[in-house]
Amino acid sequence: MLTNTRTIRIEWGDCDPAGIVFYPRYFAMFEVCISALFERATGLTKYRMVKAYDFVGYPAVQARAQFLAPAKYGDDVIAETSIGEFRRSSFDVHHRVFNGERLAVEGFETRVWVGRHPDDPAKLKSKPIPAEVIAAFTRAPSPA
Amino acid sequence: MLTNTRTIRIEWGDCDPAGIVFYPRYFAMFEVCISALFERATGLTKYRMVKAYDFVGYPAVQARAQFLAPAKYGDDVIAETSIGEFRRSSFDVHHRVFNGERLAVEGFETRVWVGRHPDDPAKLKSKPIPAEVIAAFTRAPSPA
Amino acid sequence: MLTNTRTIRIEWGDCDPAGIVFYPRYFAMFEVCISALFERATGLTKYRMVKAYDFVGYPAVQARAQFLAPAKYGDDVIAETSIGEFRRSSFDVHHRVFNGERLAVEGFETRVWVGRHPDDPAKLKSKPIPAEVIAAFTRAPSPA
Amino acid sequence: MLTNTRTIRIEWGDCDPAGIVFYPRYFAMFEVCISALFERATGLTKYRMVKAYDFVGYPAVQARAQFLAPAKYGDDVIAETSIGEFRRSSFDVHHRVFNGERLAVEGFETRVWVGRHPDDPAKLKSKPIPAEVIAAFTRAPSPA
Repeated sequence: MLTNTRTIRIEWGDCDPAGIVFYPRYFAMFEVCISALFERATGLTKYRMVKAYDFVGYPAVQARAQFLAPAKYGDDVIAETSIGEFRRSSFDVHHRVFNGERLAVEGFETRVWVGRHPDDPAKLKSKPIPAEVIAAFTRAPSPA
Repeated sequence: MLTNTRTIRIEWGDCDPAGIVFYPRYFAMFEVCISALFERATGLTKYRMVKAYDFVGYPAVQARAQFLAPAKYGDDVIAETSIGEFRRSSFDVHHRVFNGERLAVEGFETRVWVGRHPDDPAKLKSKPIPAEVIAAFTRAPSPA
Repeated sequence: MLTNTRTIRIEWGDCDPAGIVFYPRYFAMFEVCISALFERATGLTKYRMVKAYDFVGYPAVQARAQFLAPAKYGDDVIAETSIGEFRRSSFDVHHRVFNGERLAVEGFETRVWVGRHPDDPAKLKSKPIPAEVIAAFTRAPSPA
Repeated sequence: MLTNTRTIRIEWGDCDPAGIVFYPRYFAMFEVCISALFERATGLTKYRMVKAYDFVGYPAVQARAQFLAPAKYGDDVIAETSIGEFRRSSFDVHHRVFNGERLAVEGFETRVWVGRHPDDPAKLKSKPIPAEVIAAFTRAPSPA
């Protein structure tokens, strides 16, 4: 299935007093990578997807990562992102972040497609992922 | 073993356009909770621990969480943090975050105690956790 | 006028590889302090204010700060926050952050009270600040 | 003098429940832009500069910004960054961030070049900016 690859510069503000990435920043990076993967597949930014498909987002219900090698500010890491599986209203994402030749971080997330709850707009409720979105991942992608 | 409990206000800046906590912020919260747990046990802030025991930090090598119920800005969540196990130079942490009666987030981390690498101060190397630190967790803690 | 004072622990994740607060974090702290000041005056969290007064937030149109002394993780700083002036739909905020005896940061912001634009809900538009909210700042505040 | 221009995607995690950039994130963006400007001038990442010139960083002593138009996730903003003036151990930076045709944010910072204090390595002390670094800004820059 479609894999999106991007180079991400580790910035000063991503790092902690040990001089290495403060690990919650990797999960923020995962969010960026998922948006980019969907944009690669559908041609739409997350903002446009939210408007086009009338949903609220795809929050995580599970996330895990292994931090195998540190990265520091000034490093350019390569993040590879792909969907493991699409289900009715959730999907799995696989992330691999390389620092040079080394696998620095490997991450897995489960995300849920949600909209506003029909009975209470302050609440969220899972929605089916549009078939069109899933189909976009199996079509030949547009060039990066 | 010692469990530290703290109330944490979810802030506007912790939340995303869906109005709920942007999940990487929970991992930043875990870091705060671990510092607080060690301070409860040892009486030392992380800064003072780093000075007293001549190490650099305890970065995560593994982290995972389940997000079971959303939290929004203005919510006061209760975070319970405890050490699962201390090993020679690593330890496991267990986090449970309650929003009202509901378990909102459950997290597990493995952290490694590190110092500067003796051959290359730009690198990190695991170090044994001081026996005194481990012992502090089994003594009767000072009142919260 | 009402001043709110709170103690804020500087955390590991607030600090950069120089070991001091990464300064954008002070502006995030200002947001926390404004929410707390309004809650002190009105008795409502920001979430409840947004519901009660049907607005979207009070984004900054101007912000500035002087960083006079560094703070590092483990420091407990004292933040004092007060409103400089309320105007029809905007207000000025003054922040002073002390680290021990020293004034570490002084900040000034102008915030605008906004709602959804009546012609385009994707846009924001300034709204008059409710008289009740302004009045709450001149009443005797409830004890901290 | 040398101006560096870069396109920055506004991400979901940069935005708050109002759906627009949480303004402290612009100051984090300023840090990224300054690193990129120095790298453009000197050919060195911030990490390599810190090693090459034996200093600790260039923290802000003053920062201010006007937020003239909102930006939301999915927007690609254009940030222009230039040095206003170099002094012995400090420098001024000017930032302009455009969202489409509109100037969205204008910012000014004063940064100080610092090293470890000779009498107390836990403290920071200003240092002269290396002449070589300043000279790099007046040479013809390498192509972007």
